[in-house]
Amino acid sequence: MAPTKRPVFFISDGTGITAEMLGHSLLTQFDNIEFTQSVIPFIDTVDKARQCLEQLSQAHASAGVRPLVFATLVNTEIRNILHEADCLFLDFFERFLGPLEAELGARSSHTIGRSHGAVGNKGYQDRIEAVNFALAHDDGMSIRELDRADVILVGVSRSGKTPTSLYLALQFGIKAANYPLIPEDFARNELPSGLRERSAKLYGLSIAADRLSEIRNERRPGSKYADLDNCRYEVAAAEQLMRRYGVPWMNSTTRSIEEIATKILQDIKLERRGF
Amino acid sequence: MAPTKRPVFFISDGTGITAEMLGHSLLTQFDNIEFTQSVIPFIDTVDKARQCLEQLSQAHASAGVRPLVFATLVNTEIRNILHEADCLFLDFFERFLGPLEAELGARSSHTIGRSHGAVGNKGYQDRIEAVNFALAHDDGMSIRELDRADVILVGVSRSGKTPTSLYLALQFGIKAANYPLIPEDFARNELPSGLRERSAKLYGLSIAADRLSEIRNERRPGSKYADLDNCRYEVAAAEQLMRRYGVPWMNSTTRSIEEIATKILQDIKLERRGF
Repeated sequence: MAPTKRPVFFISDGTGITAEMLGHSLLTQFDNIEFTQSVIPFIDTVDKARQCLEQLSQAHASAGVRPLVFATLVNTEIRNILHEADCLFLDFFERFLGPLEAELGARSSHTIGRSHGAVGNKGYQDRIEAVNFALAHDDGMSIRELDRADVILVGVSRSGKTPTSLYLALQFGIKAANYPLIPEDFARNELPSGLRERSAKLYGLSIAADRLSEIRNERRPGSKYADLDNCRYEVAAAEQLMRRYGVPWMNSTTRSIEEIATKILQDIKLERRGF
Repeated sequence: MAPTKRPVFFISDGTGITAEMLGHSLLTQFDNIEFTQSVIPFIDTVDKARQCLEQLSQAHASAGVRPLVFATLVNTEIRNILHEADCLFLDFFERFLGPLEAELGARSSHTIGRSHGAVGNKGYQDRIEAVNFALAHDDGMSIRELDRADVILVGVSRSGKTPTSLYLALQFGIKAANYPLIPEDFARNELPSGLRERSAKLYGLSIAADRLSEIRNERRPGSKYADLDNCRYEVAAAEQLMRRYGVPWMNSTTRSIEEIATKILQDIKLERRGF
């Protein structure tokens, strides 16, 4: 008989993204246990809460173990309905709003669905504008309005510049351009002309040559572009160039885009926006 | 005298993104209180924890009120150092790992920095691949490999397709192409030819005409493209086209990209990936 997987639900009156992120980071602390995971967003009425309760009880019956529930529910009436379920019910708002109210000497507004960048907020506009900026300045596409960039990422092709730029925009509202360093730059041993006068905004991404070769081989198998020796040459030349111009840089090989983006902001002392 | 702003810190041994998201959604429940907010990521050594403690005590002294701290710290030694601070210390792991351990009958591994899509995970690769897919299939750029899309977003220009596609990729590992509906399509009253045979994968975004006109006026002030009557025409024609082909759609006007992305997944019953 296959071992039972423990059912896990992320339940929210909003998108469930926060409940899911926090729940995931808690669950990854339990290596040896298998989970089946479902997100149930937009539980913002009593009716939906009752349906949700039914879903929990079915999951319980079919798995034979009671579910774990990670919730972010602002409305106490809705939350109380879900409390009827036989499950481990961990509501992040429930646990933390009380201590916050006591500390701040104020009642919370119990307003549903307020979270990451509500539409109309300045922060939300910043994020959308930053996405448009990142797309218009991806891969050295345009040096127009490059001075509006908060940061200009440089590095060899496929070092992680594009996903990092987009993440900086979407999550943090940071305007990131990105610009490739290419063999012509290495031959001249100079940064591209549009970048030299903006070196204070540059941040470099480097990457292990063997990982770079792997990534490039997925795109253009067997090419010179993907060849390990060529990758070694490009990486070394790019790092030399960054040192020459005093460009701060990091090795992206074992870092996720979240980690890369966070470290960039930390290194160049930029504040997160977008909230 | 200006009212004191309450200092708030988001402290983590990882990126701090989860602590910040949850902390923000808690703080937005307190409308009338002003906060100054700082994220302190990568607190993964005793030394860094001690520096952090110093920072908290300085903030306390200069604000004259004790700070709020939202933390995700796995390591108990590091957490205990920060507990020495005179602050309201809310650690998400501390509060929830205990009940989880009891429920699961297992000890947590207390491993630092495990969270959203660690590099090398299948989920992480899915997200990066999805970003590349979204970029290669932005704005109808290519119908090559369109069958690999999980969803194809359609709608008039500036209805929110691009940021939504990128968010679906980065956050959920979902491959989203996007394809504009343009005046030529409305004149023919037909979907573009590459899309008709893929109508099962289509999802539409619509938008209020006055909001659309505002957004377009930022790009091309005073143009026919941005003209309110033209926007009314395009929106009505696009909605008619979507109804004709049975394409599910939503109005994006008052929804954030997080909400749009979540509702799409819910409507077309796609599972989130990327973890």
